[in-house]
Amino acid sequence: MPLALGVDLGGTNARAAVVDTDSGEIVAAHKEPLRDRAPERVVEVVRHALGEAASAARIVPDAAGRVGVGVAGQCLGATGVVLNAPNLGWRDVPFGDMLRAAVGAPVRIANDLSVAAWGEKRFGAARGIDDVVLVFVGSGVGSGLILGGRLHEGAKGVAGELGHLKVRPSRPDTAPRRCGCGQSGCLEAYTSGMNVAARVREEIAAGARTSIATLAGGDLARVNASLVDEAHRAGDAYARALWDEVGDLLGNAIANVVTLLNPARLILGGGVLLGCPALAGIVRARLDAAVSGSAATGLTVEHAWLGDDAGVIGAAVLEA
Amino acid sequence: MPLALGVDLGGTNARAAVVDTDSGEIVAAHKEPLRDRAPERVVEVVRHALGEAASAARIVPDAAGRVGVGVAGQCLGATGVVLNAPNLGWRDVPFGDMLRAAVGAPVRIANDLSVAAWGEKRFGAARGIDDVVLVFVGSGVGSGLILGGRLHEGAKGVAGELGHLKVRPSRPDTAPRRCGCGQSGCLEAYTSGMNVAARVREEIAAGARTSIATLAGGDLARVNASLVDEAHRAGDAYARALWDEVGDLLGNAIANVVTLLNPARLILGGGVLLGCPALAGIVRARLDAAVSGSAATGLTVEHAWLGDDAGVIGAAVLEA
Repeated sequence: MPLALGVDLGGTNARAAVVDTDSGEIVAAHKEPLRDRAPERVVEVVRHALGEAASAARIVPDAAGRVGVGVAGQCLGATGVVLNAPNLGWRDVPFGDMLRAAVGAPVRIANDLSVAAWGEKRFGAARGIDDVVLVFVGSGVGSGLILGGRLHEGAKGVAGELGHLKVRPSRPDTAPRRCGCGQSGCLEAYTSGMNVAARVREEIAAGARTSIATLAGGDLARVNASLVDEAHRAGDAYARALWDEVGDLLGNAIANVVTLLNPARLILGGGVLLGCPALAGIVRARLDAAVSGSAATGLTVEHAWLGDDAGVIGAAVLEA
Repeated sequence: MPLALGVDLGGTNARAAVVDTDSGEIVAAHKEPLRDRAPERVVEVVRHALGEAASAARIVPDAAGRVGVGVAGQCLGATGVVLNAPNLGWRDVPFGDMLRAAVGAPVRIANDLSVAAWGEKRFGAARGIDDVVLVFVGSGVGSGLILGGRLHEGAKGVAGELGHLKVRPSRPDTAPRRCGCGQSGCLEAYTSGMNVAARVREEIAAGARTSIATLAGGDLARVNASLVDEAHRAGDAYARALWDEVGDLLGNAIANVVTLLNPARLILGGGVLLGCPALAGIVRARLDAAVSGSAATGLTVEHAWLGDDAGVIGAAVLEA
């Protein structure tokens, strides 16, 4: 069976895996924490994780021919440069070249959601489908695009930045929210798990009446999207108004991506979309109402299949 | 020099041309009005126009090997079926097959803006560039997408429907506007030349104070986007408020497309974008403010070069 090496490089861990490229099965995997995010140290951690995974699978790392890496950040795939990875604190890091020098094999890097979309296309919820949009709503908001059977990374490798589409909330009392990227009005600023939690904390501190604080045991640090969803399901008016707005923004933005790109399959993933059933229902209703009739025809919507494994699996089978 | 045949099929005319596929030059062209829009009659008109153009270029139509056709409507390129062409009153017309039977050569059809984008990529404002978005704002609103060097038509051939993205106007007093497609909130309903003119007429009839009626010589039928732009340049407050909203909606939507797809070049075309300098300035300002920083890096913006010729030129060089 043909084997390949994939790496999922997040902000806190690097996970390496040996993947069977026929089946997509993970033959062996090894995860290591990133104690130091300096690029040279991360290269060392990734090299070591690859060695451990390869050794568990009884191969040598460069026997697999090539290493694919999904990075939580903007990547210029063609050059192997990580343009911007906020969770790693990196800007313009030639990570591909550095890792190639360390492991002695060609390295292909790509954005983590592009990699996840590719994994789902090869072995998951979009097998055999040529036009696929994967939408991820978790701590952040993003997407991966497969168009015409190929990964679409864009001219500078930053395509798919769904979280930075500019949106306008339906409630006139919602103040414009500043995004981590420095701009205002980004979809992510209103809808990511982290930003929703921050907003709820602010609004509770400012006197909002909601059962969410009680559900969090009075500890605002424990507020998260799941608790908002729980409160919503229990009839909490604050949670209802918040989810109506967040669901409207997400459903409308996803509908616009589908209208523009006309994929055959839409894949939904991430902890907020998959772990908040009340919100997911609102998102789906708005998506159905807002997508153009012609792009809706023949569109199928699925949850992501590969979960946390999409990164290493997709990375292992990335094409040059 | 290698020659090819292209057809631009609108709602009122069919224009056929013989195109030099090395230079993009139109060697000969012939335009005919569509007096009857029944598919069989349109096939006859197109066949005749092709014959006239070919004869002027001293070739026989099927000597060029293949006929490309740009249709103002939704086209399923792979099957040659026109799914929906409102200006022709067509739904699910197997126009590709019908025309092939009539001219005795393979026929490739595609949406008119896809064809225009392809023409601009081959011979115009996006020569040699692989990731291109063409935005058209004229009587309608739409786009053509070149991604990874290929025309992106989507799973059902309806990609690029920019005019049917759902948007939310900035002015709370703007009533939701119904679109010709049957949905509400479409970008086109607020921003196309036809819809802007209809709105101005409605609002003047309802008592809006503006110099536009005077500029139209008191004849509301003459109201159009150019007159709104003229009034704006003369300081008309109504025109200023309207253009602020229309420019904000267009600029924001275009910015979102650029953020999502990360093209290297954005091409602006259509009578409203190219013929209304005040509006174009507002669109550009909003585009610059709303596009994500990473997608803005290296993006160049150009006006369309080929104008009304983009259709026949792009159609002639469409790839299978």
